[in-house]
Amino acid sequence: MDKTRRYVLGLDFGTLSVRAVLIDTRDGSTAGSAISGYPHGVMDRALLSESGCDDKPLPGTDWALQHPRDWVDCMTEAVRKAVQTADIRPEQIVGIGVDFTCSTVLPVDRDGEALCLNERWSGNPHAWPKLWKHHAGAAYANRLTEIAQNRGELWLPYYGSRISSEWAVPKIWQTVVEAPDVVEAEDCFMEAGDWIVRKLCGRKGLNATAAGYKYLHGGMAPAPDHDFYAAADPALADVMRTKIPEVLPAFSQAGELTGEAAERLGLATGTPVAAAGIDAHAAAPAAGLNGAGQMVITMGTSSCHMLISDRKAAVPGTFGTAVDGFIPGFYGYEAGQSAVGDSFAWVVDNLLPAAYQQEADLRGITPHQLLTEKAERLKPGESGLVALDWLNGNRSILNDAGLTGLIAGLTLHTRPEEIYRAEIEATAYGTRMITENFAANGVPVTEIYITGGISRKNQMAMQIYADVLRQPVHILDAASGSALGAEMYGAAAAGSSHGGYDSLTEASAAMKAPLLATVEPIAENTAVYDELFGIYRELHEHFGRQTDLMKRLRGIAGFLK
Amino acid sequence: MDKTRRYVLGLDFGTLSVRAVLIDTRDGSTAGSAISGYPHGVMDRALLSESGCDDKPLPGTDWALQHPRDWVDCMTEAVRKAVQTADIRPEQIVGIGVDFTCSTVLPVDRDGEALCLNERWSGNPHAWPKLWKHHAGAAYANRLTEIAQNRGELWLPYYGSRISSEWAVPKIWQTVVEAPDVVEAEDCFMEAGDWIVRKLCGRKGLNATAAGYKYLHGGMAPAPDHDFYAAADPALADVMRTKIPEVLPAFSQAGELTGEAAERLGLATGTPVAAAGIDAHAAAPAAGLNGAGQMVITMGTSSCHMLISDRKAAVPGTFGTAVDGFIPGFYGYEAGQSAVGDSFAWVVDNLLPAAYQQEADLRGITPHQLLTEKAERLKPGESGLVALDWLNGNRSILNDAGLTGLIAGLTLHTRPEEIYRAEIEATAYGTRMITENFAANGVPVTEIYITGGISRKNQMAMQIYADVLRQPVHILDAASGSALGAEMYGAAAAGSSHGGYDSLTEASAAMKAPLLATVEPIAENTAVYDELFGIYRELHEHFGRQTDLMKRLRGIAGFLK
Repeated sequence: MDKTRRYVLGLDFGTLSVRAVLIDTRDGSTAGSAISGYPHGVMDRALLSESGCDDKPLPGTDWALQHPRDWVDCMTEAVRKAVQTADIRPEQIVGIGVDFTCSTVLPVDRDGEALCLNERWSGNPHAWPKLWKHHAGAAYANRLTEIAQNRGELWLPYYGSRISSEWAVPKIWQTVVEAPDVVEAEDCFMEAGDWIVRKLCGRKGLNATAAGYKYLHGGMAPAPDHDFYAAADPALADVMRTKIPEVLPAFSQAGELTGEAAERLGLATGTPVAAAGIDAHAAAPAAGLNGAGQMVITMGTSSCHMLISDRKAAVPGTFGTAVDGFIPGFYGYEAGQSAVGDSFAWVVDNLLPAAYQQEADLRGITPHQLLTEKAERLKPGESGLVALDWLNGNRSILNDAGLTGLIAGLTLHTRPEEIYRAEIEATAYGTRMITENFAANGVPVTEIYITGGISRKNQMAMQIYADVLRQPVHILDAASGSALGAEMYGAAAAGSSHGGYDSLTEASAAMKAPLLATVEPIAENTAVYDELFGIYRELHEHFGRQTDLMKRLRGIAGFLK
Repeated sequence: MDKTRRYVLGLDFGTLSVRAVLIDTRDGSTAGSAISGYPHGVMDRALLSESGCDDKPLPGTDWALQHPRDWVDCMTEAVRKAVQTADIRPEQIVGIGVDFTCSTVLPVDRDGEALCLNERWSGNPHAWPKLWKHHAGAAYANRLTEIAQNRGELWLPYYGSRISSEWAVPKIWQTVVEAPDVVEAEDCFMEAGDWIVRKLCGRKGLNATAAGYKYLHGGMAPAPDHDFYAAADPALADVMRTKIPEVLPAFSQAGELTGEAAERLGLATGTPVAAAGIDAHAAAPAAGLNGAGQMVITMGTSSCHMLISDRKAAVPGTFGTAVDGFIPGFYGYEAGQSAVGDSFAWVVDNLLPAAYQQEADLRGITPHQLLTEKAERLKPGESGLVALDWLNGNRSILNDAGLTGLIAGLTLHTRPEEIYRAEIEATAYGTRMITENFAANGVPVTEIYITGGISRKNQMAMQIYADVLRQPVHILDAASGSALGAEMYGAAAAGSSHGGYDSLTEASAAMKAPLLATVEPIAENTAVYDELFGIYRELHEHFGRQTDLMKRLRGIAGFLK
């Protein structure tokens, strides 16, 4: 290895694992990487005991907790492996960046330790980190929305006019109400990403991105004040005033690696550590977004859409908007789809005939590959199917978790690959609803980048997206757009005088992911997809706005309380 | 065997095979039966040559032809086998009844032979029998409907206000237009059932049931006259006047078995032969229908509903109404669902996961049994799914072949057995639409009988039907309701002086199928199903009447010309 080269370390904390990646600051090439999966995964039924014999059931459905020791242990393992693979000296690492799922929030004691790791509190589920997809606080989210509507809060329209149970405040309020003793015992609530940064460099803070998107401090309008929280619950107002750490400047250095952390990770004391970012959001600098109208989509089990713009607007159905949200100097608009890869996997996991499974096994390919191969032979519209991609509700632009999936156009001749393709097309239509909604509200989308496993593996899906969206889609060549973005946070934290860059913008320009491909729309396909999208839109409006049929159906099924 | 007993022979000609059954006239018990499958099956892609090397492709899709030699050969085989199994003397058979799919119509020469069996004509597809599901004459059916509407034909409302391509006149008109040389060469058009009866006893005629339901001579209003046909096509008017055999009195004796036929079948010369009936319709006497408001449903790949009433009404969405239609002395109302067993089989054939297939194989049960077992564990409404049972269009009450299937309420947790159950429930909702439509139009349904394989095999489906329909359903214990009905035609043709009965009513009373079970509705289920049916009805009205979305989808798919 060339010992003069400089690297940044990115730590990308996803829902099930953490990925450590070392990138060359000069050209963005990867020197080494490693992934480590959380032993406790997502705890959504019980608090898992060490022995496995003493699991404690959670109080309700829709809970989702994580184990903070997993994060630290897995980070340690992944960092050591990545450094070993890269075969570099710790001193060559000029900065460390962290991204994390968000809002994943935990009570922390005065020493900065997670409260749940204290034996006295480990039996209380509210002492544990509530994962981004912990939805058990939905009633609190709804109540906050109601209060904000009644008070005519000016910030509300910048959050799609609805507070999500995925965000921090409902989770915090749930803890305040249901476990006041936990709140009394804690020093503060911290985002998991900020907690990791604190473990690395000792700095206690709330990263600006989380503050903007998950704590209602986006800066598009005055943030919620004490009166708002007091209208909900004086105890909540108190907590929001006294137990939320100070916001760190966006994309700044949070501190330097402590001796203890350096020893644990096998890195050099004093290495600059950046303030944390949000996992999906880190894809924005990774894509090199630098001009108004550019959007990057991270396509995974679900999809997240990040659009930067120089225009300020309150766009209905967005999932949050913040000044300097993704890239300094731009308004950052977030939207999302709740089930994308999950929908395709649903077909494979539930509707794959034995003969298809056999064929895939014989040929040594995955069922996804087989279905894609068969679906590729279909012309747009040939199946006669149109689906609504709401198998896990609709995030944007309807922001309604009670909606469900639908398939229309079935006949006795309908084959599984047609359903598979229809689900892929449905997610593309859903994305077009999002981009058209932005345009209709004064924030046009002029360039689209896509990152995530599906974009690299499924050429057919990308052609469908280009055809449906009527514009080229640029596929990023990055194993993880989020990890690459985290590197950039690290590089910007280091500064140019220490082998990094002086801003996220400069880091992004130099280190952005190369394009794997640009997929151009095919004119004859777009013509057909225009018609099919028209039909999708009719179904979308009918079931999303004109009738509450799906909600009644779920009501009968007892899903809704 | 007791040589003093008397039997009737029923010949039940289905779409793929003929069944011969011998029944004791005293108690309706089965003495012997045999099935024989047509070697040529349904010819829907090509005219199959004897050698198999010289198949001739058909002119278009939606064609469906059959081979008349199959009917005769298979009948011969089945009759000889049934008699052998029963171990009776031919003289003990007092009557023969025939039911056949309808309208299955063929050009016949002066000697009563099928024109297609003549070498000179065998290369012309129009010389062959057009099977009931030959839909290539759809444009002719639509044109006839249009003309009837414009002329305000009074019979039209008694046929659901729409002429079906399954009926005789559109098939005949297609032949008149597309193969005038065939029409010139033939002596007449005959229904396949009547042609078989002619083979048996030499009598040339058109059975009253076919005349009523498939030739627009139902007697509820004056039948179409020469002017109507002439308005469509003078050549058609000419054919309808000169080339359609005389109508035979309903449920009468057509003649006696000829020496030639007796020798071929191993039966006794002079055995009375009844006029033919329609296969599904024969279930009405088999069920013993004898009072206004009684309905029998034959549940197979599709379903056929036969309601007898003393009230005369033009009910929208029916598939034909005739005086003395099913049972003498009652108005006979027919309705239907295009895909019932076919919908359930679609799930098994296309969406059965490998793990389910394995489980079924290991346990030695069919996939249908396995899915039923899993679906049985679900409570009504638990899946959150509602489907539209239109995988093969909608016959009643919308009479629209361009409609397609739909499933709403899908989530990432939806399992195949939930889809399977939803398809079964959808067909029950479809049946309730039919019964409510009858009631709303002045012809209430007070008693429901069900026959067909599904009714005997799937107890869960029958419970769902009882729960959805809010009334008991009586399951007939008959291997084939149609075959049993054909026996009754035979018994009535024989007359009481020859060991039979003097009328179909008497034959039906004496020989009707016993009940296998009566399934009572369960109150808590009906309450849930009322709500779900309300949702089904909303989807039915929206996609069936308020939007043409499904038709546009099919248009894009190129299914519709």
